[in-house]
Amino acid sequence: MNISNLPTAKKLILKKRPGKDFDEENFEVIEDLAKAPEKDELLIKVDTLAIDAWIRTTLHEGSYHDSAQEGNVISALGIGEVLISKSKKFQEGDFVSGPLGAQTHSTMHAAAFNKIHNPQLDPEVNIGLIGLTSGLTAYFGLIDVGKVKEGETVVVSGAAGGVGIIVCQLAKVLGAKVIAIAGGPEKCSYLLNDLEMDHVIDYKNSNVENELESIAKDKIDVFFDNVGGDILDAVLDNLNTGARVAICGAISQYSDMKNVIGPKKYLKLAENYASMEGFTVMHFSEKFEEATQKLLSLYEEGKIVVPTHYENGIESFPRALKMLFTGGHTGKLMVKI
Amino acid sequence: MNISNLPTAKKLILKKRPGKDFDEENFEVIEDLAKAPEKDELLIKVDTLAIDAWIRTTLHEGSYHDSAQEGNVISALGIGEVLISKSKKFQEGDFVSGPLGAQTHSTMHAAAFNKIHNPQLDPEVNIGLIGLTSGLTAYFGLIDVGKVKEGETVVVSGAAGGVGIIVCQLAKVLGAKVIAIAGGPEKCSYLLNDLEMDHVIDYKNSNVENELESIAKDKIDVFFDNVGGDILDAVLDNLNTGARVAICGAISQYSDMKNVIGPKKYLKLAENYASMEGFTVMHFSEKFEEATQKLLSLYEEGKIVVPTHYENGIESFPRALKMLFTGGHTGKLMVKI
Repeated sequence: MNISNLPTAKKLILKKRPGKDFDEENFEVIEDLAKAPEKDELLIKVDTLAIDAWIRTTLHEGSYHDSAQEGNVISALGIGEVLISKSKKFQEGDFVSGPLGAQTHSTMHAAAFNKIHNPQLDPEVNIGLIGLTSGLTAYFGLIDVGKVKEGETVVVSGAAGGVGIIVCQLAKVLGAKVIAIAGGPEKCSYLLNDLEMDHVIDYKNSNVENELESIAKDKIDVFFDNVGGDILDAVLDNLNTGARVAICGAISQYSDMKNVIGPKKYLKLAENYASMEGFTVMHFSEKFEEATQKLLSLYEEGKIVVPTHYENGIESFPRALKMLFTGGHTGKLMVKI
Repeated sequence: MNISNLPTAKKLILKKRPGKDFDEENFEVIEDLAKAPEKDELLIKVDTLAIDAWIRTTLHEGSYHDSAQEGNVISALGIGEVLISKSKKFQEGDFVSGPLGAQTHSTMHAAAFNKIHNPQLDPEVNIGLIGLTSGLTAYFGLIDVGKVKEGETVVVSGAAGGVGIIVCQLAKVLGAKVIAIAGGPEKCSYLLNDLEMDHVIDYKNSNVENELESIAKDKIDVFFDNVGGDILDAVLDNLNTGARVAICGAISQYSDMKNVIGPKKYLKLAENYASMEGFTVMHFSEKFEEATQKLLSLYEEGKIVVPTHYENGIESFPRALKMLFTGGHTGKLMVKI
């Protein structure tokens, strides 16, 4: 392709900043000629986008992540194929991963992208397994932050989500006892019967506090938290001495970031000489290569599977983002463009 | 002294469990013949008691610390002289420190007590400097939990209290820049002019959030927190990457332990790859001797001073405990019996 023949790009923009709730009316798909790449830029055809909880937080003003402005393209990570390269780093036809945005074609600075070495654009591997916001987040949160050891008791919230489902399996590989918390009988059955977790708690149909007390009273060594809120408090109430709480996210709080409910049981950290450590995957960028190789090995050995849920077309992106919060999926949620 | 000639003990008991507020009417001083020590027990004449925030938490039902029942003697640590020993560990005339309770004479199991090696019962040294709930708590919280390094920025809340005032001085000895938060011009002036802290914030007369932003925006490496609540949130909003928050206590929350307000800015831990670790001094019991020697050396070299505030007589104990929360003292608060 050359710049005299640029494709038309569909872009998902923020039409109206949402309050606590959002729906498709907060977004709009517009069409526009793809921007011609300049020096060091790439024009990329988007193949698949990851639906991640952090995207929700960009819709707030002045939030944890950089805020989107009305009229801006919604942020998203994904994989795609280079159509035009004005960078020495990539050639036309290369497969790349990075911050593509919610659009069919992206013109971006090459520096933000990595080359995919697999022979094909496999979203299961390149987004679900070794993606920044799924497998790598799971890996560093469990191993570097949670410092899990063989025989320990690990609790995972959001256990059927794209990050949690990898955390659960990694923890089993490392010899831990795993208590998975997820919502609804379908996800819980999958975690218990297919992935063979030690215990599963359906937070939508049982009392997490009581369940944790009966399964692991004061015995939780590691908590990988994607959820926050009441579940975080229920775990803090049952920590073992020296426990580590890895704060990956707080999906229960993202709809109202100005009124986050903090963990009212945080003084249990003092009682148990326990720590709560937060992280984002970018804090571990020096170790990406090592972690990627380990995750790929475990996948090839069949020790980790990567459940995925696809929605189709850029128009489905708002619906998919909403599904992330209502929980109508198991595994990594993605939009195939 | 022998057991045929036991003294009359004054004991401060919990008369009526308080709600959010408490005053002298919740307590009562009763007189009773001191209990004769049995095998392995000691009868101790109480000299001085430490007024500590954890005592407040024992007044709640089912709280963080063991709850006192109505009619029980109020818990307290202190120093005293052995009048009768039925233990091989101590002799009559020995000076000891330990959980004496709020009373003039205590009959206690010897195992809970330590011998004081100083030639005299010096409360400034034995409670304020090397006491469990002042110097030792300060030492382990700053060094083992906070992991302070030379040149780092340390914030201390409750900085004019018995723990905070040692933390502030230790942090300066270790080469850190110290921002001390305390209430009222008198304490702040003492911290700034006498103890030469780098910055002092009077939380009663200024906006802590704004002050921290102007002094140390996103640059706080270590926070030693005795207070919790809004001050904790203001610090979380200004953490440096890799910061450590040491949770020693939360005096702002002790009056209503069932409705603790958790840190609503806790997701800042994730943004900054920061940790919040709780502790109590008992988690470090193996290192007490080492820490005691270091604190004593610094004191003898004049590098740490130990401001103290005395109230007099067991009857003053409830008033002193109340003062701990209203802040009418500087340094370690004690009751001389």
